[in-house]
Amino acid sequence: MKMSETTHFEGNWFSEISYKKTYAQSFKVKEVLFREKSPFQLVEVLDTESVGRLLLLDGKTMVSDIDEFVYHESIAHVPAMTVKNLKKVLVVGGGDGGAVREFVRHPEVESVDLVEIDDMVIEASRKFFPGCSSALDHPKVKIYREDGIKFIQNNKNTYDVIVVDSTDPEDFAQGLFQEDFYRDVYDSLTENGVLTAQTENPFLDEFNIKGIYDNLRKVFPKVYSYNAPIVIYPGCFWTFAYASKGPNPLELNPEKISWMKEQQKTLQWYNCDWHKGAFALSNLQKKITGVGEV
Amino acid sequence: MKMSETTHFEGNWFSEISYKKTYAQSFKVKEVLFREKSPFQLVEVLDTESVGRLLLLDGKTMVSDIDEFVYHESIAHVPAMTVKNLKKVLVVGGGDGGAVREFVRHPEVESVDLVEIDDMVIEASRKFFPGCSSALDHPKVKIYREDGIKFIQNNKNTYDVIVVDSTDPEDFAQGLFQEDFYRDVYDSLTENGVLTAQTENPFLDEFNIKGIYDNLRKVFPKVYSYNAPIVIYPGCFWTFAYASKGPNPLELNPEKISWMKEQQKTLQWYNCDWHKGAFALSNLQKKITGVGEV
Repeated sequence: MKMSETTHFEGNWFSEISYKKTYAQSFKVKEVLFREKSPFQLVEVLDTESVGRLLLLDGKTMVSDIDEFVYHESIAHVPAMTVKNLKKVLVVGGGDGGAVREFVRHPEVESVDLVEIDDMVIEASRKFFPGCSSALDHPKVKIYREDGIKFIQNNKNTYDVIVVDSTDPEDFAQGLFQEDFYRDVYDSLTENGVLTAQTENPFLDEFNIKGIYDNLRKVFPKVYSYNAPIVIYPGCFWTFAYASKGPNPLELNPEKISWMKEQQKTLQWYNCDWHKGAFALSNLQKKITGVGEV
Repeated sequence: MKMSETTHFEGNWFSEISYKKTYAQSFKVKEVLFREKSPFQLVEVLDTESVGRLLLLDGKTMVSDIDEFVYHESIAHVPAMTVKNLKKVLVVGGGDGGAVREFVRHPEVESVDLVEIDDMVIEASRKFFPGCSSALDHPKVKIYREDGIKFIQNNKNTYDVIVVDSTDPEDFAQGLFQEDFYRDVYDSLTENGVLTAQTENPFLDEFNIKGIYDNLRKVFPKVYSYNAPIVIYPGCFWTFAYASKGPNPLELNPEKISWMKEQQKTLQWYNCDWHKGAFALSNLQKKITGVGEV
């Protein structure tokens, strides 16, 4: 197995070493299916024994066959079920296409714009993750190969839901967790719009989750947190932000509940009960996000 | 660092290699604080950089400073808040004392019996996990250094709650997941008693979770599942069974809710809202446990 510069391999094991090099998660690899350096990052696709195909960006786990549905169903259906007049959706990052795939299920959605800075992520997903990328050519979907921050600044008062499906708050993704960016997101959302975003692991709090939520609270009148487990991510237990200009995440759109009860039979993770339960936070999550009182 | 027979060390990293040797989780170790072979297993305590002190049994992660409260508060307060007339509690396994510590908080509990087959686990916990083991000398607590299966057979119609705080369903713990054992648990419970038990990770379903729940369903009239994240366990997202002779896990004892609202300010994980949310299962958990319909 050829060593890459960024990614940690030992024998036929790939390891993601994280939390200031004190913790690692390793996956036994059958084959490296893809490895190329884009202008932004190293893009790799491994075929593993434990989690199926695994997408890495700069040596960090992003998407796997075994659990991609958890992340994508959680980040998409939670806002989609609570925003009324859901017509226009924007996904920032998420070039794998998983979040896009979930939004196009919703019949009232007119368009899903995907802004992915790195074309190579999209192409690798098309080739190696046919399930994730299956909706990228859907007539409602438009792909913009641009910087998400600039794109949002140029589209005011446009989107009913914006999803920030980003890597960790470091390097070129750091800007996606700052107050200035959240202000641009706020302006890009319509009157009753909602932002959802991944906000890291609360046990091994490497990226100051409280700081992320404080930034959201400076901009949005209502900020909530929920969670879902992403097995391939370091620490697995993952928090998500739901930042809202109006909607309450526990008030599912009554006109859509019976539709979703049918739809969810085809989903692998999301259902309306789970949706509500995911916002019932533990004391730890309340403390680390500053959302709710113990 | 001295190598042990059972435990995988490389340099100053400890690894738990699991799921048929296709997945590993590793912790950087400052110091091995304890390592001794009991008649049952290798008992080790590591001081790690990422999760504080870490108890291993035969090279498998059991308890860490960073997340012990999740497991113990989840496995104890869920039954304790839903069983009426909670007087006598039995914890099978759990020699670290964490579950016991949570039960003695409940004022109406008269006795907590702990049956731990391996005295060395208790002694290692007393020495290295003062937080977990803090209630082992509480006047309500009685420790039995015996085999849990036999103990339960000798105590019919005795306990209002039984917790099976066991290792994985293999080796000498395998019997704790079988129909015969669950029948003994049923007989050892009082009329409206409840069993809670850890039931493994649903993504990397190494131990046939469906089989465990099928065994429970052969014996108990009501079987539910809930979940909590245990960061140090392989795959982290952990399922728990709530098998009941009567109580419904969503019906919290109304006489105790206001007491718990005060008590939970001192807890790190559990609160009454989280309790209810933890039973709102994803499609995956419903499918893998056979509990509830999608």
